[in-house]
Amino acid sequence: MLLHLVPRWSARLFGASPGWRRYTRGASARLKGLGCPRGTSSRLACTAYSTVAGSPEVMLTPERYPVERLPFSTVSEEDLAAFECIIPGRVITDPEQVQTCNVDWLKTVRGSSTVLLRPQTSEEVSQILRHCYKRNLAVNPQGGNTGMVGGSVPVFDEVILSTALMNRVISFHDVSGILVCQAGCVLEELSRYVQERDFIMPLDLGAKGSCHIGGNVATNAGGLRFLRYGSLRGTVLGLEVVLADGTILNCLTSLRKDNTGYDLKQMFIGSEGTLGVITAVSIVCPPRPKAVNVAFLGRSAGCPGFTEVLQTFRTCKGMLGEILSAFEFMDAECMQLVGQHLHLTNPVRAVTSSTQEEPSLSGDQEERGSNSESPFYVLVETSGSSAGHDAEKLTSVLEQVLNSGLVTDGTMATDQRKVQMLWALRERITEALSRDGYVFKYDLSLPVERLYDLVTDLRTRLGPRAKHVVGYGHLGDGNLHLNVTAEAFSQELLGALEPYVYAWTAEQRGSVSAEHGLGFKKKNVLGYSKPPVAVKLMQQLKAMLDPKGILNPYKTLPAQA
Amino acid sequence: MLLHLVPRWSARLFGASPGWRRYTRGASARLKGLGCPRGTSSRLACTAYSTVAGSPEVMLTPERYPVERLPFSTVSEEDLAAFECIIPGRVITDPEQVQTCNVDWLKTVRGSSTVLLRPQTSEEVSQILRHCYKRNLAVNPQGGNTGMVGGSVPVFDEVILSTALMNRVISFHDVSGILVCQAGCVLEELSRYVQERDFIMPLDLGAKGSCHIGGNVATNAGGLRFLRYGSLRGTVLGLEVVLADGTILNCLTSLRKDNTGYDLKQMFIGSEGTLGVITAVSIVCPPRPKAVNVAFLGRSAGCPGFTEVLQTFRTCKGMLGEILSAFEFMDAECMQLVGQHLHLTNPVRAVTSSTQEEPSLSGDQEERGSNSESPFYVLVETSGSSAGHDAEKLTSVLEQVLNSGLVTDGTMATDQRKVQMLWALRERITEALSRDGYVFKYDLSLPVERLYDLVTDLRTRLGPRAKHVVGYGHLGDGNLHLNVTAEAFSQELLGALEPYVYAWTAEQRGSVSAEHGLGFKKKNVLGYSKPPVAVKLMQQLKAMLDPKGILNPYKTLPAQA
Repeated sequence: MLLHLVPRWSARLFGASPGWRRYTRGASARLKGLGCPRGTSSRLACTAYSTVAGSPEVMLTPERYPVERLPFSTVSEEDLAAFECIIPGRVITDPEQVQTCNVDWLKTVRGSSTVLLRPQTSEEVSQILRHCYKRNLAVNPQGGNTGMVGGSVPVFDEVILSTALMNRVISFHDVSGILVCQAGCVLEELSRYVQERDFIMPLDLGAKGSCHIGGNVATNAGGLRFLRYGSLRGTVLGLEVVLADGTILNCLTSLRKDNTGYDLKQMFIGSEGTLGVITAVSIVCPPRPKAVNVAFLGRSAGCPGFTEVLQTFRTCKGMLGEILSAFEFMDAECMQLVGQHLHLTNPVRAVTSSTQEEPSLSGDQEERGSNSESPFYVLVETSGSSAGHDAEKLTSVLEQVLNSGLVTDGTMATDQRKVQMLWALRERITEALSRDGYVFKYDLSLPVERLYDLVTDLRTRLGPRAKHVVGYGHLGDGNLHLNVTAEAFSQELLGALEPYVYAWTAEQRGSVSAEHGLGFKKKNVLGYSKPPVAVKLMQQLKAMLDPKGILNPYKTLPAQA
Repeated sequence: MLLHLVPRWSARLFGASPGWRRYTRGASARLKGLGCPRGTSSRLACTAYSTVAGSPEVMLTPERYPVERLPFSTVSEEDLAAFECIIPGRVITDPEQVQTCNVDWLKTVRGSSTVLLRPQTSEEVSQILRHCYKRNLAVNPQGGNTGMVGGSVPVFDEVILSTALMNRVISFHDVSGILVCQAGCVLEELSRYVQERDFIMPLDLGAKGSCHIGGNVATNAGGLRFLRYGSLRGTVLGLEVVLADGTILNCLTSLRKDNTGYDLKQMFIGSEGTLGVITAVSIVCPPRPKAVNVAFLGRSAGCPGFTEVLQTFRTCKGMLGEILSAFEFMDAECMQLVGQHLHLTNPVRAVTSSTQEEPSLSGDQEERGSNSESPFYVLVETSGSSAGHDAEKLTSVLEQVLNSGLVTDGTMATDQRKVQMLWALRERITEALSRDGYVFKYDLSLPVERLYDLVTDLRTRLGPRAKHVVGYGHLGDGNLHLNVTAEAFSQELLGALEPYVYAWTAEQRGSVSAEHGLGFKKKNVLGYSKPPVAVKLMQQLKAMLDPKGILNPYKTLPAQA
């Protein structure tokens, strides 16, 4: 497949169609490596932060947040000896190695654990937990350490139980697409594995290069394919979980339908390691789409903006139907940040007449559009089984949104490299933000109609106290990622943000954590989205499954009065 | 749209294509009433069985099955007065009216309740349960009473708590397709309601004319759209549940993503009324497909059979991709029974040259095919957003399966009435079976490769003791409905079937209840699909949520030692 620069398209060609159709046929797009690294996801690996983690710039969690250590035991020499018996050579106490796993990748929280355990089997996890349970030692289960809410690192001196060496594929069924693997398999590696067998993973996210499938399940990760393939609650068919006392719960079936008793695995999906340690996952993978198209669309400055984004979404949903696989949006400040910090080029703004291979697409405002910022950008992806049919459907949509003025500029890609270039703009926003300073992150579910109002509201509210207030996310799922950057962490700015953001969300009957979970940083805001009866029931469930509370303490649930 | 008889198609036209293509364009199939009554599902209504229920032919459950009444209180005059205070005029004690709700629609189990309560609101359900909890009265929550495993009727004298009057739509969002409604809404009525707004329900099943959405959720119903729209675990967004002690748990959110704490609603999905009474449901509905096509395919007798059915499935999955919405199979005995008891015509066998409007489709074996039985029949449905594209894809598939000899005969429908006629053949099998005598029903998940082996195995094993041994079901989900009919219930035949069928299934690591649940009749076979650790955990969950065990006792979980 030839490497093309991302082309820009002429509105007039759009209307007339033949040029367009010729292009889409030519790029019939049997993508060979759809899930290859996008962005710099591999940077997220825990070890990449060793220097950062070791530096004094990340405050110890209890120094920044009001939290008291619970009366767990502390790790003794005898404990270390016992661990060494269970997993010889895989008990890590070297301070520098342990330190990398004490700090979250956002560099916002830091624990003070002194021991990192790296089991390879469920049986080893079971023995470790049996010991910890008996000894009343707190345990922090850790996957790829890519969480956003401080859930994946210790708060105090919890034993870190890493799934990093539990990275074996157990089985793959090439007719049903059912994959069974250990919890520590890295999502991107699984992606590659199943793609070679003509399937894809039902989830995809920016952190794919580091995150573990067990962590994905434990946090009920949403991500970029949610719109099409739905929740892990539907695609995860079975789990193996080790309970707090070391009991192995084997629900690792590979059946699409199984109504024999209560579906216990659901309790562990999204429980953030507080109810059990997921050690293996059975998940159903969809067939690899034969054709993938990505369109990246924008509007010129001065246009009203978000209303048109919503109308574009409705148009896409109606006309693309079953082939719509993503509808992501980002605002102009996001685009500015990925340009500034990562040197990515805005494909619907730059004039590239000398390099482009295809004529440009832009609407009536082409003249001023070429030098102005779009207030919003939208990434639309289709995945389907017929390149021709899909291109035809997408062409109709693009004609429609362009002719009706919903969009003033756009570009489209069908080959793998261009698709990745466009996706990078969206996927690397998190990384660009983290380079901009300290980031206050909010991950909200809101009614789509009100999705962006909070961003503009906050810009006014915060004024110059914030460096940037940006909004982007999975519009198709009603999921806003609201991020505020500042030179450094500041209690004052935090006070201006919270509980304001949560109360605003609760007023819309939204969720204060759409897909990131509650972890350590959001555990006290659970009550904004769940009634007291529900919180009490969650606490009962926790007490039932982990009566000593040793699993990932200080996380997910608010401290009991 | 004109009414056509179901056409038969010529193999030669298939190969040549123009006739076919002309037809599919003509029938561009914007179905107006896709979910209108199929079959005679309305017959399933509880009240339709009043005469049957009153007759002595249905044995009392404790007379047929070994079960002891637990030490619950019995309903007193004071209890009735208390109920009358909560729901004036809706406390039913008329023996005939109560009796219809004591018997399951299969006429296999019968309870001896003397009181039927018909609340209209969650608050009323809450007050009723608060009273029953205090008084230690057992409660049988009942929806449409269409369950297959005796879960929906009392075993002894449990108070019947019907959701029949809780049938109000609370809200519908016409952009997101999110429906919020009370638990007693009948599935078919909801279907009609959302279709008028250009959406469909994400589930569909034969009992749609009677079953309640609350019952569907409580049993985690699978059904005919599972292959395309997945499990209720993904599509149900929120629930309101009344707990055993009367506490109202409101998790009735309408968010696609909400990772705030544990997902409590999952505990109640599939819990068969044993953990709480579902009183309202929030569910996301997919947009109504613009085009629906159904192909009904068969093979002439003497052809090897099931291997080709599997290959046909693989071909459909690969070539139809995202538009494949159902892949159902039935064997020749099923076809014989729907013909014999319901007078439905086999569309791929009958010669209808005088009435047909389109030439017939059949392969090389047309001559003998016209007078012979196909060993298997397959129903393939596509649902998509472009009639033209979908027809083109289906045509290619049909050409492929016909030319390669996987299929020897077939018919196709695009208009609503023909689609319904074809679906009736599959959907009314249950009804035909119930007219054939006493039915021993098994609903199994098995590896697709072995799916039919058990049927042929049983035919040999049972010999003339069984009237019919038939297999049909949701092949696309690996879900076999295995049914054995006999003149009457017989312990000897039961002994020949069980535990043989369960052991056979367990050996394949299958599920002994794919979608029907365990209810009363299968509760003791849970151990064939779940390990002791899981069963113990289920019992702990039950004890936590319903410490007195008043909710739907004798169901789902085996009696504790």
